[in-house]
Amino acid sequence: MDKLIPVVVIKEIGETEKILSALEADGIHCAEITFRTACAQEAIKLAVQKFPDMHIGAGTVINAEQCKRALAAGAKFIVSPGLSEEAAKVCEKADVPYYPGCVTPTEIMKAISLGITVVKFFPANVYGGLKAMKALAAPFPQIRFIPTGGVNKENLDEFLAWDKIYAVGGSFMVEEALNKWQK
Amino acid sequence: MDKLIPVVVIKEIGETEKILSALEADGIHCAEITFRTACAQEAIKLAVQKFPDMHIGAGTVINAEQCKRALAAGAKFIVSPGLSEEAAKVCEKADVPYYPGCVTPTEIMKAISLGITVVKFFPANVYGGLKAMKALAAPFPQIRFIPTGGVNKENLDEFLAWDKIYAVGGSFMVEEALNKWQK
Amino acid sequence: MDKLIPVVVIKEIGETEKILSALEADGIHCAEITFRTACAQEAIKLAVQKFPDMHIGAGTVINAEQCKRALAAGAKFIVSPGLSEEAAKVCEKADVPYYPGCVTPTEIMKAISLGITVVKFFPANVYGGLKAMKALAAPFPQIRFIPTGGVNKENLDEFLAWDKIYAVGGSFMVEEALNKWQK
Repeated sequence: MDKLIPVVVIKEIGETEKILSALEADGIHCAEITFRTACAQEAIKLAVQKFPDMHIGAGTVINAEQCKRALAAGAKFIVSPGLSEEAAKVCEKADVPYYPGCVTPTEIMKAISLGITVVKFFPANVYGGLKAMKALAAPFPQIRFIPTGGVNKENLDEFLAWDKIYAVGGSFMVEEALNKWQK
Repeated sequence: MDKLIPVVVIKEIGETEKILSALEADGIHCAEITFRTACAQEAIKLAVQKFPDMHIGAGTVINAEQCKRALAAGAKFIVSPGLSEEAAKVCEKADVPYYPGCVTPTEIMKAISLGITVVKFFPANVYGGLKAMKALAAPFPQIRFIPTGGVNKENLDEFLAWDKIYAVGGSFMVEEALNKWQK
Repeated sequence: MDKLIPVVVIKEIGETEKILSALEADGIHCAEITFRTACAQEAIKLAVQKFPDMHIGAGTVINAEQCKRALAAGAKFIVSPGLSEEAAKVCEKADVPYYPGCVTPTEIMKAISLGITVVKFFPANVYGGLKAMKALAAPFPQIRFIPTGGVNKENLDEFLAWDKIYAVGGSFMVEEALNKWQK
């Protein structure tokens, strides 16, 4: 996977092609389409069909039911703001990566017990950012992180420089890609 | 419910009437009587009888057993510092609102899975305050917050100005009401 | 138990005696040997045999299986970075103290429901330090803390001065003891 995971909120299904085209043109071959909007499932399905070279996943998945809908639409990975054991089990059965948000040692230990080794760290800036992740890496050397929330163009490189960063998530990449696309 | 939830610690049952009278005189028609003291259950019972116009609830409820005792005493809502699934189920069965303390996305997702849409955010100042709640509101638009801990007269309005604030909890309102009452 | 719990990472079994001798010579009669290294179980066994006057425990225990191995090696207490219900139950059955890392009210309530009254607070500096623990102590007067992570020689006394501090964990004591020992 790319080291950048743009968090894509699609308000109307008609926006899907424009946004994904903009990302692809900007060299980003991955998109996390969030279940925050009613058309999310449809957007994932459309994206998977029209952008076969992109790695399309589902975000803001908060339970097993949404997880199943995302997988049915063709999502290649599932991201949750927190950890849902039920969603983790659905993903394991489907052999699709599940990236749950984990911000405390207890949450990370639960993830490890479910066979997960990559966790989202959200909201990264609220829960201590890079300093927090480095402290958490000491007892959990097997874990890699996807910081999201408060990551931006200015501090991106600082995150990516650390080898425990699996990828970085955010919506800033979407805005940037759309700005370039519209020019 | 009022937007202010005073956290009332009653050390001796004899203080109940004075404290609640002071709150009522100060225009506050709600009280969360905490289970931190031995006389909590008795105080809730007394408060419900003597102050029929006030919305009396129980706070610092940490398990199902305390929750049942609070409900037996007539508590109209239950507040926990964290999330107890058992207490949530007792409240759901009794059709009484349960406000659990949730400070991570995983904890909020667990609350949502239990049908809860209002969570306490405690200790609010420790876990990032308004900034943290705003970050958490992005993936959880259905959630409203009751920040408690570090909320005071100076920053109260800032919290209340945000539409995702269900209410604000704290003990500062009790002290203020008592000061006015004693004058 | 001493108020100081040195977090000991033993990379090679041959280092065990030197490190524990250095701690003992420095007046520290306790050691948390972490399960971060392959030789941890063997090191605990060796330490228990060779240092009968020291209180030897296991750290970074993240599941029931490691917990059982630590107990089999003779560990007198078990420390986890987070809370593992399974490990808690193994320890309860063996009547050995379990100190899980708990940093949110929900995690502390879970610990209390398992009969635990001493929790690790890790990473202490990331999750708000002494200020956070003091806020958490209000609804949980029965809980005592073992702050670890960011505790150092400079701020140690500030932690130890608070009566809710059960002990303080860290690796800085090991480095210090080794420096003195080598002189």
